[in-house]
Amino acid sequence: MGKGSTMQVYGLPIWLYPTFVLIVILFGVCTEWDPLFGVDTITKVGDNDVRTAVENTWASGNVSYSMYMDAAAMCVMGFGFLYVFSKYYVWGGVGMNFFICGFCFLWVNVAKAIVNAIFKGEFHKTQINLDEMVTGCYVTAAVLISFGAFIGFTTPSQIVLVCIIEPLMMLINEHIVLDYIHVKDAGGSLVVHCFGAYFGIAVVIGMGVKAKDLPDAHRVTTYFSDMGAMIGTIVLWMFWPSFNGAGFYNDVTLQGRILMNTYLAICASCATAFATSSLLNKGKFQMLEIQNATLAGGVIIGMICPFGIEPWTAVLIGGVGGVISCSGYALYHPFLERLGITDSAAVQMLHGIPGWIGAIFAAFACLADNHNYLYSYNTQWETTADMPRSKGEQFGYIILAIVCTLGVSIVSGIITGVVMNQPCCPRVHKKDMLVDHDCWVIHDEGHDPRLRNYDTNVVLANPGIPVREMEAKA
Amino acid sequence: MGKGSTMQVYGLPIWLYPTFVLIVILFGVCTEWDPLFGVDTITKVGDNDVRTAVENTWASGNVSYSMYMDAAAMCVMGFGFLYVFSKYYVWGGVGMNFFICGFCFLWVNVAKAIVNAIFKGEFHKTQINLDEMVTGCYVTAAVLISFGAFIGFTTPSQIVLVCIIEPLMMLINEHIVLDYIHVKDAGGSLVVHCFGAYFGIAVVIGMGVKAKDLPDAHRVTTYFSDMGAMIGTIVLWMFWPSFNGAGFYNDVTLQGRILMNTYLAICASCATAFATSSLLNKGKFQMLEIQNATLAGGVIIGMICPFGIEPWTAVLIGGVGGVISCSGYALYHPFLERLGITDSAAVQMLHGIPGWIGAIFAAFACLADNHNYLYSYNTQWETTADMPRSKGEQFGYIILAIVCTLGVSIVSGIITGVVMNQPCCPRVHKKDMLVDHDCWVIHDEGHDPRLRNYDTNVVLANPGIPVREMEAKA
Amino acid sequence: MGKGSTMQVYGLPIWLYPTFVLIVILFGVCTEWDPLFGVDTITKVGDNDVRTAVENTWASGNVSYSMYMDAAAMCVMGFGFLYVFSKYYVWGGVGMNFFICGFCFLWVNVAKAIVNAIFKGEFHKTQINLDEMVTGCYVTAAVLISFGAFIGFTTPSQIVLVCIIEPLMMLINEHIVLDYIHVKDAGGSLVVHCFGAYFGIAVVIGMGVKAKDLPDAHRVTTYFSDMGAMIGTIVLWMFWPSFNGAGFYNDVTLQGRILMNTYLAICASCATAFATSSLLNKGKFQMLEIQNATLAGGVIIGMICPFGIEPWTAVLIGGVGGVISCSGYALYHPFLERLGITDSAAVQMLHGIPGWIGAIFAAFACLADNHNYLYSYNTQWETTADMPRSKGEQFGYIILAIVCTLGVSIVSGIITGVVMNQPCCPRVHKKDMLVDHDCWVIHDEGHDPRLRNYDTNVVLANPGIPVREMEAKA
Repeated sequence: MGKGSTMQVYGLPIWLYPTFVLIVILFGVCTEWDPLFGVDTITKVGDNDVRTAVENTWASGNVSYSMYMDAAAMCVMGFGFLYVFSKYYVWGGVGMNFFICGFCFLWVNVAKAIVNAIFKGEFHKTQINLDEMVTGCYVTAAVLISFGAFIGFTTPSQIVLVCIIEPLMMLINEHIVLDYIHVKDAGGSLVVHCFGAYFGIAVVIGMGVKAKDLPDAHRVTTYFSDMGAMIGTIVLWMFWPSFNGAGFYNDVTLQGRILMNTYLAICASCATAFATSSLLNKGKFQMLEIQNATLAGGVIIGMICPFGIEPWTAVLIGGVGGVISCSGYALYHPFLERLGITDSAAVQMLHGIPGWIGAIFAAFACLADNHNYLYSYNTQWETTADMPRSKGEQFGYIILAIVCTLGVSIVSGIITGVVMNQPCCPRVHKKDMLVDHDCWVIHDEGHDPRLRNYDTNVVLANPGIPVREMEAKA
Repeated sequence: MGKGSTMQVYGLPIWLYPTFVLIVILFGVCTEWDPLFGVDTITKVGDNDVRTAVENTWASGNVSYSMYMDAAAMCVMGFGFLYVFSKYYVWGGVGMNFFICGFCFLWVNVAKAIVNAIFKGEFHKTQINLDEMVTGCYVTAAVLISFGAFIGFTTPSQIVLVCIIEPLMMLINEHIVLDYIHVKDAGGSLVVHCFGAYFGIAVVIGMGVKAKDLPDAHRVTTYFSDMGAMIGTIVLWMFWPSFNGAGFYNDVTLQGRILMNTYLAICASCATAFATSSLLNKGKFQMLEIQNATLAGGVIIGMICPFGIEPWTAVLIGGVGGVISCSGYALYHPFLERLGITDSAAVQMLHGIPGWIGAIFAAFACLADNHNYLYSYNTQWETTADMPRSKGEQFGYIILAIVCTLGVSIVSGIITGVVMNQPCCPRVHKKDMLVDHDCWVIHDEGHDPRLRNYDTNVVLANPGIPVREMEAKA
Repeated sequence: MGKGSTMQVYGLPIWLYPTFVLIVILFGVCTEWDPLFGVDTITKVGDNDVRTAVENTWASGNVSYSMYMDAAAMCVMGFGFLYVFSKYYVWGGVGMNFFICGFCFLWVNVAKAIVNAIFKGEFHKTQINLDEMVTGCYVTAAVLISFGAFIGFTTPSQIVLVCIIEPLMMLINEHIVLDYIHVKDAGGSLVVHCFGAYFGIAVVIGMGVKAKDLPDAHRVTTYFSDMGAMIGTIVLWMFWPSFNGAGFYNDVTLQGRILMNTYLAICASCATAFATSSLLNKGKFQMLEIQNATLAGGVIIGMICPFGIEPWTAVLIGGVGGVISCSGYALYHPFLERLGITDSAAVQMLHGIPGWIGAIFAAFACLADNHNYLYSYNTQWETTADMPRSKGEQFGYIILAIVCTLGVSIVSGIITGVVMNQPCCPRVHKKDMLVDHDCWVIHDEGHDPRLRNYDTNVVLANPGIPVREMEAKA
């Protein structure tokens, strides 16, 4: 066998070992402890002033640690199980998602130092602390969303490539939106969800994979795989307030508002997604729509959640999100499929469209209310007199942020997709798309018929009528 | 097709869209931000006094946010997966549970303002904050418990009706028990668990559904669905201390005691449920009993958990709970089934009976000890001299609270069940009970035999003997 | 039937009821409330000084409560689902794991009082508080790790015996390592993971079970059971930082460092485990290796995580852990199997070997750096001048701690295994090993072919092409 074949078989270790060594070296170059946790602080802990300073700071960080943990759970467990919906790609869905988390959580720390150096013109080491762990979750979430678009037809080596490039591009776009365009995006409607979705779709376009390339026989779910995906949906749904609020522990008032607006919005999208799915499917629920559109409230409220809106507004916005997302899955997604645009888990309907619509809502909120547009310009709430921008200007800048995010994500995504198609990466053959045996050891070792009671389809004792009864009847 | 048919097919959107619009309007009328998170506070955050006041208050709330999240996880994930036990109702179990959470978490905020207005004679808006989110979990838990009684033979529209009525009735009963009878119920033995269980059973009676109506062939579980239900059991079990304690962040001493008593009791019920299940099933465990009776310690300790009991007492009470609940599932539930009383998930055995027995234990604890009955009268611990009630009187009032809870739950439940049977709601045909295809899109698209390795019943490589070995053998 | 038969059938209730009564009595004798939560404190809560004292202490404990909850989730949910990998032992894996948690969480409180009395020569009641709940998690984790070694061929009665003995031996070893050898082990590389693994393997040796005794036909997994096990892997992975740090809430600086070192290490082991599994399996991932070796970073960093290492060192150590553990599963475990050494879930490869290698790394870190060895001697960081030991001496003492842990675990494990084989306990027949029907009620009630859409293997609607489309095609 030639070299191509070796790369096809051993592509992942060939890519990943050197990359890992590089990450270790770059960690030495690009990161350091937050001084709070450094040896100098620890050894002076007998000094009361040092101790108090540390406890005050980290204690508040520590409070937020449980929110970070919720956000991390959304990445590893939430997205992971959301992606087991495919009958023959259960292991790949949860497994590759897991790998992306492990890799990106590390890489983000290096990527941040690089991107900061590019923008600020001088190099500073990333200080490892709770802030960076939260940032790690946000950046990784964008990669996981992109993964949803090309799940099932990318090799692990190609995924490594995405994991290296996308965090860099995501951080670059975030810098532009936050520091140049001066638009805040607390929950990442734009910089996380919208960016991740369109980057993923652009990767598919760059790879040249069309919807018709995916074998129809593999694009199926089962009663079992769809239940597994509900684990993901529910983990994402319940922890979403923490995801939007985790980064704001320095201002507990603002954090409280973010948590509660997100909570109201995501409850509303749950209710309206059920209603809409029933309406669009002749009175029945479509599992795919329930798994995803119920979550749209968390995406669409992302940019607006720290604004000075009333509770009913959050409920309304979330409810609209559920209707839009559910309709997207039912009506718009099949239309795109016919155009040949592939989006494996239809992430555009959950993250893409609700993402930029959320930003547009935020723009209109700026027009409508002084307090809103104040916040959306700066981290501090200011009186109108201090504002360097008019309401209309801020409206325009938010629209600019949407255009910028779409531009950066689509251009960099297409380039990434093209690179992934080069001989440097093994590729998935069409016949192996959306099946786990391309990447996982799966054996059929025969089946002992005496043990068929353990088949998941063989029915067991009636839970309402205990065994004794059943036996008595028989 | 006539109008009845349209209602039968599109009942949910017909019910839910107007209800959702109503909720948005009522949110505008009935709710407002807790001033801590209002725009006035936020814009004054530069003012040090304001900032400190906010941080002090919300910081303690923030600490409790992780407990709230545990309680929310119990509702959405715990009950959700506990209810996937039924072979043909996996999606409906977790899906309808999810819908109830989304809907009730919102509706509770409105319901609270209404019930408060009824009792206090004047209208106050509900202030949205962490307290209300915790209340939302408690009220929703009662609805989810009721759902367990009629799971599988109610349409989504009927469930919407329950979601509207039950929170109102639950809050009314809670008001009577707490503010008129002056009996405290920290973990909700009575006002959450007992109320929810008997309301649910009463709904079934009101609907006129008998055990024999449910098709025997559908009342079955599988090896797979019962494993899914264990996800729910374990989530409920581990987070139960948080559920009982989440509302008490203003008194960390009391909260600590609640957490630890619940922890001890639920560990004990886990141990005794296993012993009892083995005893009653000829040395084997019955999955239904393990899934449920292991949790009885959390229910039975609910009212008594803030009392001044010793650790061994909590262990004993929890252990007794496990024995009672497990025996209920094995012996009493089949007896009720023969009488025609339907209780789909046998919630009476986990929530109903352990609920009122827990209250009786609390009544005896009041008789036995000064400190106990002191707490059970007021939120503050008082010296005996301040007490307006004797021990015996408090014992009597607790019994009265049990009678009141049973009365309110059963009467309002029966009425709700009767209303659910009217033409305003679509109903489930007998042949469609406990099967998902009544409410969910489920297709059979054929099965490619070449892909049978992915069948969940086909055995895979021996984990003890890696692939290489297996291949060498073959 | 004779007495032996009764014991074989009713062994668990015969063992467990008296044990439970004993635990209640011993709880009365051996435990008491931490005075912070006692009635005396509660009734004085009006006193401002008391209130402040309580809040200061418990508030910090309360912050850590969410970390305790993460650690508890690892025990009940993490290990529980990790152990559902076996096709015919899904219920037994998660169910027996659940039972062990309930039983040991209680028993630890008694065991601690007993072991303390042995070592200190005087009896003190265990004060129930958050500290003890965290300790309960650590001790129970060791038992759960041991359970992994003999999963599938032990009866519940034999497991009760292990649950009684192992916490005592684990605490004794911990006392020796911490208080006599003066080696700190923050995350329990040695005293939890290494101890648990070798105790479990020794139990199997003591029971005389050989690898060839286990029926090959039962040592299999399915696509479904392996997905279930991934729930466990992911819960363990994401909460591991909390597990290592939960006990250190009195020093938030140290806790922060522990959390972040663990986080970096476990991310690294995730990445290298995927690379190594792919390398060793011809470019494919082996599910068993991914489920376990991804977690090795959390084990191997356990002792070293509070040390003054740089971030890159944590990444490197974690990465090495992933490579070692994955290679162990792929290469060393089959070799041991051929030697006849049984280790059902191959816990030695995840907990045993990474455990003592982690301790050796800690020993070398002591040699390399002043700050490291300072911490590893005492809980307080000291200047070198205060140190009673040289670097070389501390290196030696850590090696001694490894030897001690291996000695205590193996000797006490073998004795436990021999006792488990006596007539006092029912045993599993060879033909019933690794099948659930030995312990669980499992019925086959026939299967209605009209309901085959619910078979988990029947494919459902294409999520990319909504139902309407599919129907139009057909």
